[in-house]
Order: sequence, then structure tokens, then C-alpha cells
Amino acid sequence: MKTSITIGQYLIQQLYAHGVRHVFGIPGDYVLGFYDQLSKSKIRIVNTCDEQGAGFAADAYARIRGLGAVCVTYCVGGLKVANTTAEAFAEKSPVVVISGAPGMKEREKNPLLHHKVREFDTQKKVFEQLTIASTVLSDAQTAFQEIDRVLRAALRFKRPVYIELPRDMISVSGLPHHRAAPLHERSDPKALRAALAEAAAMIQAARQPVILADVELHRFGLQGELLRLAQRTNIPVAATILGKSVIAEHYPFYLGVYEGAMGRADVRRYVESSDCLILLGAFMTDTNLGVFTARLDAGRSIYATSEKLSIRYHTYEDVRFRDFVRGLLRAKLGRRVPATIPRPPRSKAFKSIRGRGLSVRRVFEQLNTFLDDQTVVVTDVGDVLFGASDLYIHRRTEFLGPAYYASMGFAVPASLGVQLANPKRRPLVLVGDGAFQMTGMELAATVRYGLNPVVVVFNNAGYGTERSMQDGPYNDVARWRFHCLPEVFGAGRSWLVRTEDELDRALREAHAHRESFALIEVALDRNDRSPALQRLTAGLGEKI
Amino acid sequence: MKTSITIGQYLIQQLYAHGVRHVFGIPGDYVLGFYDQLSKSKIRIVNTCDEQGAGFAADAYARIRGLGAVCVTYCVGGLKVANTTAEAFAEKSPVVVISGAPGMKEREKNPLLHHKVREFDTQKKVFEQLTIASTVLSDAQTAFQEIDRVLRAALRFKRPVYIELPRDMISVSGLPHHRAAPLHERSDPKALRAALAEAAAMIQAARQPVILADVELHRFGLQGELLRLAQRTNIPVAATILGKSVIAEHYPFYLGVYEGAMGRADVRRYVESSDCLILLGAFMTDTNLGVFTARLDAGRSIYATSEKLSIRYHTYEDVRFRDFVRGLLRAKLGRRVPATIPRPPRSKAFKSIRGRGLSVRRVFEQLNTFLDDQTVVVTDVGDVLFGASDLYIHRRTEFLGPAYYASMGFAVPASLGVQLANPKRRPLVLVGDGAFQMTGMELAATVRYGLNPVVVVFNNAGYGTERSMQDGPYNDVARWRFHCLPEVFGAGRSWLVRTEDELDRALREAHAHRESFALIEVALDRNDRSPALQRLTAGLGEKI
Repeated sequence: MKTSITIGQYLIQQLYAHGVRHVFGIPGDYVLGFYDQLSKSKIRIVNTCDEQGAGFAADAYARIRGLGAVCVTYCVGGLKVANTTAEAFAEKSPVVVISGAPGMKEREKNPLLHHKVREFDTQKKVFEQLTIASTVLSDAQTAFQEIDRVLRAALRFKRPVYIELPRDMISVSGLPHHRAAPLHERSDPKALRAALAEAAAMIQAARQPVILADVELHRFGLQGELLRLAQRTNIPVAATILGKSVIAEHYPFYLGVYEGAMGRADVRRYVESSDCLILLGAFMTDTNLGVFTARLDAGRSIYATSEKLSIRYHTYEDVRFRDFVRGLLRAKLGRRVPATIPRPPRSKAFKSIRGRGLSVRRVFEQLNTFLDDQTVVVTDVGDVLFGASDLYIHRRTEFLGPAYYASMGFAVPASLGVQLANPKRRPLVLVGDGAFQMTGMELAATVRYGLNPVVVVFNNAGYGTERSMQDGPYNDVARWRFHCLPEVFGAGRSWLVRTEDELDRALREAHAHRESFALIEVALDRNDRSPALQRLTAGLGEKI
Repeated sequence: MKTSITIGQYLIQQLYAHGVRHVFGIPGDYVLGFYDQLSKSKIRIVNTCDEQGAGFAADAYARIRGLGAVCVTYCVGGLKVANTTAEAFAEKSPVVVISGAPGMKEREKNPLLHHKVREFDTQKKVFEQLTIASTVLSDAQTAFQEIDRVLRAALRFKRPVYIELPRDMISVSGLPHHRAAPLHERSDPKALRAALAEAAAMIQAARQPVILADVELHRFGLQGELLRLAQRTNIPVAATILGKSVIAEHYPFYLGVYEGAMGRADVRRYVESSDCLILLGAFMTDTNLGVFTARLDAGRSIYATSEKLSIRYHTYEDVRFRDFVRGLLRAKLGRRVPATIPRPPRSKAFKSIRGRGLSVRRVFEQLNTFLDDQTVVVTDVGDVLFGASDLYIHRRTEFLGPAYYASMGFAVPASLGVQLANPKRRPLVLVGDGAFQMTGMELAATVRYGLNPVVVVFNNAGYGTERSMQDGPYNDVARWRFHCLPEVFGAGRSWLVRTEDELDRALREAHAHRESFALIEVALDRNDRSPALQRLTAGLGEKI
């Protein structure tokens, strides 16, 4: 009779089965036993400088591979990834948070073990708020089922989950002959059929249907379906800023980014005058919808997400997002005559002017010329995110930014996750000076693991996004000479650039430098900002 | 009739009244309005690189001044200080976490505003787990009372509290004519009298009474009372590692640090053979008690803390810690003949040997010669903490280390809080390479605010504490040339030292360099560790 494997081994096996090849984290004594198991498995451990970096890296990894994992010790590690887990929750990224913990035997009599906050379940209670499912693997009888349950929830809802491993359970065997339950949850076939029939009829009858494509198409890997749907029907497609890059921008049916009053006026007019708006996987958030300046009429909308399917004013229960999108593709929608639609401005041949100082607007135009099919743009929060809405994206999944939750410090550690998830791509990281000071030292991890992101630091001496809302010395940040960092790491190259021709040269040399990170510090005026940010902060500033 | 002040102004006024002169944090749009009020007040805003740094700084500040505050934006800021708040909770440090939040009006209809995780109260629910009291100032009628209530809880229990400021409430006036309720909660006078009588009788009858002094004496500012009690009665005093420095070590009645089997054998014998152990403000934690090797007999103990007063096997209700300690001082305990007790080894005249490589043990002996009355030792977690138990402390409150919760990354940002709380002191920061990589870049903030810590980085190429428990590549950290950091900040001085004479010179020069930080990178063997750590990890390692 086959002996059962241990709880730790089963968890590793299931992570691997769902595509996880790297686990990000920092060890600690409560989780050392599991690190030992991991180090003997086919999954690679990736250490960062701080747990926060591991959390952001795992989030980015999950967005690309469909599942990611961060592995930390009890409380002093776990609570450092509270914020990154919240981001994964808010933006639907399936991250498995694995935390070591005091053993079940150690918990008897409730002693004050190191790292304990209040009760032994304090950390679990915190993560119940920040995840879609959580478990403490305290019982060998149920451990495998529990692992199945929470991983299924992560994959079904594309949200983070929490698994706590008491250290005396890691090497305990679970039940023998356990087989992981199938993941697929099906739609109610009748409800699905009815919903598709109604949607198809509405689309067929429409004069000017438009698809608004958003982030869940990424998360559910439905970019191919979207592309075929648009190609087959000639229905125009707009993307949100969160969903940007869900479709390559060169397709003739692509309108550009829709973000209410904050975006291009022609896109806005076209989308808002549609008599059949097909919202696929959309987040109805303030930043995504131009601080609620979007005017989207529910009475003319089909709204499909992983959580809800509504057509006009009614809702269908038990219809899965993936089934609905695939169903649309099979529905007889007919091929339309291609409409005359607004198109994103072409990436112009940018000509740098020798000796001309840098401006945010022109830096983005210049960066546009640098992008190629191998680039993944990873942005942090701030003008690097909003300005980037004008970047021209070549292929799908090439743009990653925390456009809704908007936690600063995402980009540099995220680039670690991005490049390990897909080593064929080279990240172009856009990060402000303030955000870089939070997590930018994770460049050390890119050196350690042989990665080569190109990092552009927009140095405008502070939190630029806030200056136009309300300014004070608290919007200044400490002065760093970012370009001196290769000295600290003993690796990488850097450039400090002040003019367009210097940026030209730096970008060319960074492109050629493949063996480690390239850091370009871009000196900007403290009051300069992109046109998109000017519009946005005007909207946000009113609410302070 | 006098008009009432606004909710934000009242909060500032009350913080100031309780000694807060600096608030640490990073602004964000939900909290900008309050930052504006702060910037116009007598309280100074101190920006760090990351919110984590602000959290640790506020914790250290609170430990010295009796109250500290960190001020952040909603979720993306707040959740970054979950871990530092947990530390403040675990180690009893009264930190006020102030978070901006969406306005009450904005919350209607439950829209997806940026930074929102799940529900509007998600962050509040997280902090309910990590604080002793929390409030959302959503109602002008009750706001002032609520501020009073949570600040009182912080001061009464020496634990963190959470105050959420919806941004549309900051400038709303509270009730006029409000007067803050008095803070003092009194003991039940009869219970106090009975407890003191019993304690005094037990002490009087004892052959060998010993005081074990711990961290709450710091928190409640009772170091002076402890000193007078010992001087008046000649009862010997031992400290725990968390309570180290609660009393200056030169007093003849001082035994040294007691930590069960992990500490000095003579101290252990003396303490454990006592027939009347007076535990004052003690944390009964694993690390504090030598991984539970301490043998302290409750049947011979008086155990007084802010939460509990027990004598032998019974407990007194409603007796405040401060009243009890002060009561002991007034009790007629008589003056004993000074006992012959074990004494801490004297700080020997250390003689560095030219060309001799560095070892952890001798580095600490060498550091001992560097300490003076102006020094505050601030340690991070790891061998810098355990090895430091042998440092000789000159005056009270001169040692700060997260000895129980043990969150890495504490020391550098804590030094910011320490020096702003008491500008007459100069922090000596002891930090490992792994911990420095988490938060060490907060040196930037020391430059910005004109501070001058001396930072000793113990570089042993990894998480040394874990190596002896279980080793693997995951215990390595990325390589940084720490001594190159002054280049990045454009300030500070640094030394890379490999021998005892180099360390000698670096310490002398660091002492003379007063205008900014001094960083000494100490090159150590990856397997070297202090005697204390060798004992401790043997104990901890058994439990993996």
C-alpha cells in the first residue's frame, strides 16, 4: 500500500500542478521546515530583501502565470505582506500566502511564544479580511481537503488565499489515496443558454455595440477569446487602464483606453453613445472610470465578471465568466461591416532634441520608441502609471500596473515576478522617486537571480501626484542619487539623464546591456506632469 | 460663546498634550487634509522612505516619550504598518495609528474607490486585531469622546490604538465646551492596601528576595521608583533582556540579565533559589525566559504587571501596576544588609590586536568601550540582540530592542524615533545585514532631519540566527556593499572593517563625526556567532 505524502509535500505538489515554479519569501524559524521541503522540490525559492518585496513579486507572478505564492514566517513575516495581499485581493490576483506558525503542541496553555501578537489566531483573523479563503492546517485528517478548498477558491475567484502551517504539521502525513477534487465549476446550463440568447439578441439588434475589455480577461486567460470575438464580429474594443494591453493596440477594431473624462474625448464619445456596451471583466472603480466621470448606462449594458452577470437591469445566477465569454464566441453574432472608429494616436517617430531638458510628456513619447515585442511595461503608482496610458502596447499582457489599489512600491519587486514568470520578456519598469525609495532596493534580488530589468526612475523630488492637490514639505522625499546604486550592489549599470539626447543614448545602451539591471535616473522638474495626470488630479483634488 | 475646534485640531491638541512632538508617516490623498492641519500645528511631520519605517520609528518614539504616532493614508499606507503595530502591541508600546480614509459621503452606495480592499471597514477590522482600542471618527457628536477613549486606552495599557479619519470629517467641528476626561484610573484602595500588606509581609519574611525588573517599568516610567526601592531595601535586582537597561548596571545590587538556561549560570542560580521573587512588569515570553528554560516558582512569587497582580496562587483585582510599585516604595520594608550577589562581568579594558580578524564576541567587547552616557543602544533582531545582552549599560533607558516580537528591520528606523524623542542622545544601532536590507535605507531620513546615528552593520552574509537551526541557500542574503551608501545619500561617512584595529579606528572616527550618520560595516565569518546566540538557537532549533 502506498504511504501518504506529508502535508507540506502535498501543498508543494498542488502548487506545482497549478503552474507555480517559484515561491517568493524570507525564511524564519517557524517556517524553516517547510523551506527545507521546498528546497528539495522542483519549485525554486526566491529570496527578496524584505517580505514586502516578496509579496509584490508574487502578485505580479500570479497575474502572469495564473497562480503565485509567497512564503513567510509567523506574524513578523506574514503581517509584512498584509498590504500586498490586500492589493492582490483588490485587483484580483491569485496569490497563495503561506505562513509558518507555532506548532499545535506548542500552543497548549497559550504561552507567549516569540512573534505572537495577541492570540495564536490573530494573524489568521487579519488574513480573513484580506483573502477569499483561509485555513490553518491543524488536522492531518482534513489538511489535503483544506489545501484543495483554498487553492480552488484562489483559482475560481482570482483572489489571494491564506494557508497557515503549524510547524509540527509540515511533516505529518495526510490521508492516503487522496485525489485533488477537480477545479472546474460549471455554469447552470439553462441559465447560461438563456443569458447567451439574450446577449446575442441584444448585440445583433445594436447599431453601435462596443466591448469594454478589462482586467479579468487577463486573469482568466481569455485574451485569445476576446481577440477572436472582435475579429469575427468586427465589434470595436476599448480597454480600461487596468485592462490596458488585454489586446494588442495595432488591431483596427481597437479604440484605445476609455477612462471617462480623464481619457481621450473621441473614445469617450464613442463608448458612451453605444447602444450595446459589452463590459467584460470590468472593475467599476474610481480610477478605472476616470474618478467616476464615466457615464455608462446600465440599461444598454451587458456586464459580465467572475462575480456577476447582468444584462440591462436583471442578473443571471450561476453563470461563470469564462463560460459566458466562450459562449459569446460560439454565438451566431454575424460579421459586421467594420465601423469607422476613433483610433489611438500612432506612435510617432520621436526625434530627440539635443540639449533639450526632459518633460514627462516627451519622456513617454521617447519611451514609446523603445518598446518592442519582448518588453513588459511594469509601472508603479503616480505619473508613471497615468502617463503610461499613452504608451503603445505591442502584444497582450505587456502592461502591468496597480491601477486600482494603487499601492506605491509595486514596480521594482513586481519586475522580479514578471521576469521569473516569463524569462523571455524584459521588464521596463517605470517608477517615481518616492515609490523607488519604498522597495527599489529589491534590485538586489534581480542581481542575485540573474535578471535584467530596465528601470526608469522619474525623479521629480517628491510625491508629484499630490503636489497639484495640496502641496507642502511632506510631499518632498529624501534625496537619493539613484544612479549610484550599482556601486552598492556591485552590479548593474546606470545613467543620470537631463536632456533628450542623453535619454536617447541611455536607452540605447540600456537595451544593449543584457547581463544585469539598467537604471536610468530621469531628472524632471518637480512641478511637471503628464496631461493624463493633470486631468486626474484635478478630479481627485476636489475631494480632499 | 466659544466656537468648537475641528476634529482634526482636537486630535492634534490631545496628541500634543500627551507629549507627542513628532508624527511619522507618508501622506496620501485621503489624509492630505490632516497633513495640512498637522503642518500648521506645533507637531512636526517626519517623512520616512516607506510606511514601515514610519511605523518602527513611532514605536521607538513611543517607548521613550510615552506616546508616539504614525499617520498614513487608507489601506496602501495603513496596511503597511500592520506589522509594526503588531510589534507595538506585543511589546506594549503606545503608538497611535492615524489613518486617512474615504469620506463618509463618498461611502454611500459602496463604490469602488481607489485603495479600497473589500469593504470600507476592512482596514478597521484588521486593526481591531492589532490594537487595544479603535475608532472611526464618523460622527461629530462623538468624535472628541472617541479620541479621548482611545488615547486613554493607549496610555492605560501601553498598547497601540487606531484612529480612522474619514477625510470629510477632518475639518468638521466637534461639540463645543468639550473637556478631555482625566486619564487616571485608580486602584480599589482596599484591594491595593491588602495586596501591599501581603506583599510586604512576604518580602519581610524572605531570606533571599530578588526583584526581576522588566519592560513595563520602562513603559510606565517607573525606573526611578525601582532604583529607590532597591537603594532603600538593598534587595538585589536582575533584569530580563527586554527590560535590560531598566536600571544602570553599575549599582552594587544589580545582578545582570536573567534568561533561564540561556544566561549566566550564577544569575540563574541566585534568582531561581530565591524564596521571594518580585516580578515587576514582566513579560513571560519564550525569548525573555530563555525559551522557557526559566524555572520561576509561582508559589514564591509576587507578579505585578499592568494586566495582573498575583501573589503566590491568588490574584488581586483592580490594583494598578503604578500604584502597586509606588506602594511598595512607601511600605515599611526595612533595610537589609547588602547580600553577597553575583555581579555582571566588568567591562574590561579591551585591547584590540592589530591585524586580528573580527569575531562577534570580541566586537561586542570592543563596542563596550565605545558606550558612554550619551549612547542609546538600538538593536535589531538576531545576534545583534542576543550578543548585546552582554553590553554594559550606563544609564537607564539606554537599550532598545524588539526582544520578544522580534521583527527584523526595527533598528535603523527606530533610531530615527529615538533621536527625535531625545535629541541629546546618540543612537548606536546594531543591525545584521539581513535586517538592514529591509529598512536600512531609512538612513535617508536621518540625513533629511539632521540626525547622526552610528550604525554598525554585522555583515555575516545571511540570516545567521537561522544557520545553526537549519541551513540552506535561503539563509543567504543578496550582497550589498553597505559602506557605499553615503554615495547614494550624498551624506554620511562609512568604514568597511575586517580587523580589530580597523574597527578601533572606525569607532573613534565615527565618534568624532557628528554631522550625519556613521556606518561601520563589520565583516564577519558567516558561521560566527555570539555565545548567547549559540545557547539560544540550540533551544529554538529543537522545535523546527
